[in-house]
Amino acid sequence: MATKILPPSDSAYQYPLLIKQLLHSSQRFENNNPIVSGPHRFSYAQFNERVCRLANALKAAGIGPGDTVAVMDWDSHRYLECFFAIPMIGAILHTVNIRLSPGQILYTMNHAEDDLVLVHDDFVPIIDGIKDQLETVKGFIRLSDESQSPSSEFPTLGEYEALLAQADVHYDFPDFDENSVATTFYTTGTTGNPKGVYFSHRQLVLHTLNMVNMLQSRSSEGALLNHDGVYMPITPMFHVHAWGIPYAATMMGVKQVYPGRYIPDELTRLIREEGVTFSHCVPTILQMVLQSSEAPDTDFRGWTVIIGGSALTSGLAKAAMERGIQPYSAYGMSETCPLLAITRMGKEEHALAEEDQIGWRIKAGLPSDLVDIQIWNPEGEVLPHDGKSTGELVTRSPWLTQSYLNEPEKGDELWQGGWLHTGDIACIHPDGSVEIKDRIKDVIKTGGEWISSLELESLISKHAGVSAVTVVGVPDERWGERPFALVVPNCEDLETESLIEHLQQFVDDGTINKWAIPKEFKLVDDIPKTSVGKIDKKLIRAQIS
Amino acid sequence: MATKILPPSDSAYQYPLLIKQLLHSSQRFENNNPIVSGPHRFSYAQFNERVCRLANALKAAGIGPGDTVAVMDWDSHRYLECFFAIPMIGAILHTVNIRLSPGQILYTMNHAEDDLVLVHDDFVPIIDGIKDQLETVKGFIRLSDESQSPSSEFPTLGEYEALLAQADVHYDFPDFDENSVATTFYTTGTTGNPKGVYFSHRQLVLHTLNMVNMLQSRSSEGALLNHDGVYMPITPMFHVHAWGIPYAATMMGVKQVYPGRYIPDELTRLIREEGVTFSHCVPTILQMVLQSSEAPDTDFRGWTVIIGGSALTSGLAKAAMERGIQPYSAYGMSETCPLLAITRMGKEEHALAEEDQIGWRIKAGLPSDLVDIQIWNPEGEVLPHDGKSTGELVTRSPWLTQSYLNEPEKGDELWQGGWLHTGDIACIHPDGSVEIKDRIKDVIKTGGEWISSLELESLISKHAGVSAVTVVGVPDERWGERPFALVVPNCEDLETESLIEHLQQFVDDGTINKWAIPKEFKLVDDIPKTSVGKIDKKLIRAQIS
Repeated sequence: MATKILPPSDSAYQYPLLIKQLLHSSQRFENNNPIVSGPHRFSYAQFNERVCRLANALKAAGIGPGDTVAVMDWDSHRYLECFFAIPMIGAILHTVNIRLSPGQILYTMNHAEDDLVLVHDDFVPIIDGIKDQLETVKGFIRLSDESQSPSSEFPTLGEYEALLAQADVHYDFPDFDENSVATTFYTTGTTGNPKGVYFSHRQLVLHTLNMVNMLQSRSSEGALLNHDGVYMPITPMFHVHAWGIPYAATMMGVKQVYPGRYIPDELTRLIREEGVTFSHCVPTILQMVLQSSEAPDTDFRGWTVIIGGSALTSGLAKAAMERGIQPYSAYGMSETCPLLAITRMGKEEHALAEEDQIGWRIKAGLPSDLVDIQIWNPEGEVLPHDGKSTGELVTRSPWLTQSYLNEPEKGDELWQGGWLHTGDIACIHPDGSVEIKDRIKDVIKTGGEWISSLELESLISKHAGVSAVTVVGVPDERWGERPFALVVPNCEDLETESLIEHLQQFVDDGTINKWAIPKEFKLVDDIPKTSVGKIDKKLIRAQIS
Repeated sequence: MATKILPPSDSAYQYPLLIKQLLHSSQRFENNNPIVSGPHRFSYAQFNERVCRLANALKAAGIGPGDTVAVMDWDSHRYLECFFAIPMIGAILHTVNIRLSPGQILYTMNHAEDDLVLVHDDFVPIIDGIKDQLETVKGFIRLSDESQSPSSEFPTLGEYEALLAQADVHYDFPDFDENSVATTFYTTGTTGNPKGVYFSHRQLVLHTLNMVNMLQSRSSEGALLNHDGVYMPITPMFHVHAWGIPYAATMMGVKQVYPGRYIPDELTRLIREEGVTFSHCVPTILQMVLQSSEAPDTDFRGWTVIIGGSALTSGLAKAAMERGIQPYSAYGMSETCPLLAITRMGKEEHALAEEDQIGWRIKAGLPSDLVDIQIWNPEGEVLPHDGKSTGELVTRSPWLTQSYLNEPEKGDELWQGGWLHTGDIACIHPDGSVEIKDRIKDVIKTGGEWISSLELESLISKHAGVSAVTVVGVPDERWGERPFALVVPNCEDLETESLIEHLQQFVDDGTINKWAIPKEFKLVDDIPKTSVGKIDKKLIRAQIS
């Protein structure tokens, strides 16, 4: 393409998209909104100073451009400072998934070639156990919430707050290539070792601009988050940068609340006392907040929550709305930074009757701006957006991991045909909304038909006696597979017959076929979850067989 | 900087920032909002089809990547289609300033090396007059609002609608380098020929993402524009792409109204009948709308207007607010795409008393996200943000023209020291807000002091008998310069003594010094304007001397 590209003036500034610009945007005006974390309340001006101090402390610890710094912490002001200071000096932030097994954590730290580790007191025992096998780590910084840190078996450069107190408050953050890697973290698949994804400054800046747009869009009935709002993440900051929303919230200069370790009563108290207006989490956490002992005394009206990670069920959406909460859905994955789609509510959607509104809210939402989404059949043909054709959701956007860290062959598989393969089965409705039917590997193949385990879960969850449910496919001699349901009842007398009767009405009205009624219902106290709080269907299938 | 840059997977899609993505974002969901222009009402789906048809028509006319297509039209659906189709095929859109003299228009068309010209019936006489001197133009397409076009002295390829009707509705818009030039247009300085500025796809996409954020930000009392809003530009589309807001509005998928040639009664009727909620214009146009004969019968409540180009005076802000209009200010220039700063109103600002709120609204606003602004003294030293220190406003952002078209030496001057020089004198307040004091060339140097002509105009405009005012410096033997005021009275008995008495109170309270009282007040019917509606101080100074 012989388009015209003109040379800039020799003195023109070539503006790179760098994370420092996100921070500076909120520094350009006086801002009374605090950043709250435990006993701390920092102004944005103080926060900016602390980011400079951290940069100087990292430099003093020998960290420079291209080095990797691992962080093991609960959601805190420190973590937010690391989100900025580490990439801003040209280094790479490795957000360690502290819910992995020590062996997996060791694997990720060696694989990412971490140079320095910032470790919270609570995770010192993990490091004590693996320290002799860490291949690249040259030092440790302790993160303490108490004045007296428990002892460790490894030497450290000091405690975070003490190091910051000694450091200079000025740091001249340099410009560099916007394609420099800013962050990395690991995603656990069904088999093999965790895989590393990575994102550049350019990708994170574009994701943030887009996230801010999405948080504010279709807002005649109020934005999800605006400058007057109060933000508290309840998706761990090690999990896809808490969906990248701390970057968005910081650019917007809003009040932010970091809740530390997630304790349902404490989360509920923070929502009430700090006036939180906006959060995001997996369904389980919302359920835990609603069932916390603080919940009955808490007015949840004015709290908006985006649900992701697992699908929002209509049952949970209804329960949330009954408490005055505005539930939304968002869709994405570690590989996608993560935002691909999000519920948008305008005048028309807010005017819908409750049942229809819940139907809109529990879909995966509308594709975000700048996100291309297609549905492919197994032959790689593009399927129509008719709300019926289902296939794998593939995508392109400016913020997708460009491969897996040091595993190019897995990266090629992810990007087969020039589109990122999500591994999700979905359909797209004529109105553009995306409906995730299942993970490819969780689809139940029965009698020549595909049954969506998610759809079945949603239908079962509508039964008044069901608190939580998950469905997996189990081998069946005659039909190939049949559904098997794990149900957490919310009463003592829930019977299988009642569940079958409940599902029969959906067979009768054509929503599902008769093979979709599970072969077996098992009543349980709890559903097994993965380290990031998702339902662990792999484990469930293993336990059943 | 040895940051880490990792190679992407061979099959990973390298997502370029291209204008087509802005259009596709609003195509991803069903959209009932129309694009209104004269008798036409197009859905977004139809609009998308028309953009494809136009691309095919351009191709049939021999236009390809790197070619330049000039447009001479009033604000119409056609112009919006050109905003997309021309850059999307890799060509360059030249938005011709139809208010320039025919000689200047000829200069810009030759200088931009236009290949094809789309010309509205009303501008055919201009082309008739210059056609023999056009050096690069190979063809013309006529734009007609009537079924029968008046004749021209030059051959044309046909009429726009007829060409679109013949063209195919499919076009596979290619990917190319995001740094390709997308648009160009000319800015008239005080001396010499018009200068060409130019913007790349990357710059326009980033400007649009930022514009959408700004239109939606600080919106607890309602965004400037959201998905449920109705947009009508009243800044010509040839003037810095109507501030780039048609791109933002299209990405947001809102209802858009294109008013054709600006006729105050017609604008007012459209605001009323189409339910327009958001516009932007120069002060003069807002004044014309408020004074139109349709105005008394029009309910302006719910109409938000950004004022730019010239400063919003407190008098006009007050008059607008009395009619229920929400006036805002924005600041930028042709070289800056244009957005640099914009009024933002949150909870706190909306709670201000009227006088203070007007004070907030008439400032140039807060710097936009990703915009760096500094104030330099003549020695190039950075001045503090204390609300007092004044100097030249210099800036960096991702959407600034990187030079002047084919005039690198002028580009170097613009970018002296790696910052774009606006030629505006400003101060920055501790709260981050920008206050433009004057154009460097309009500052009045008297008795060793600098007097801001804008500040003086604002103070004089507060006099109840003043409808409009402009102040220039005139030579003065004793003081170097003295202010000279042109005043449009709104009553028959306005006297100079009353104006002097009015200003004396601001001398007494220390707002201005006594040299700031103009040497002479001249009562006039009208104030001379430039082609884009700005006050023509150059002409005024020439007429006085």
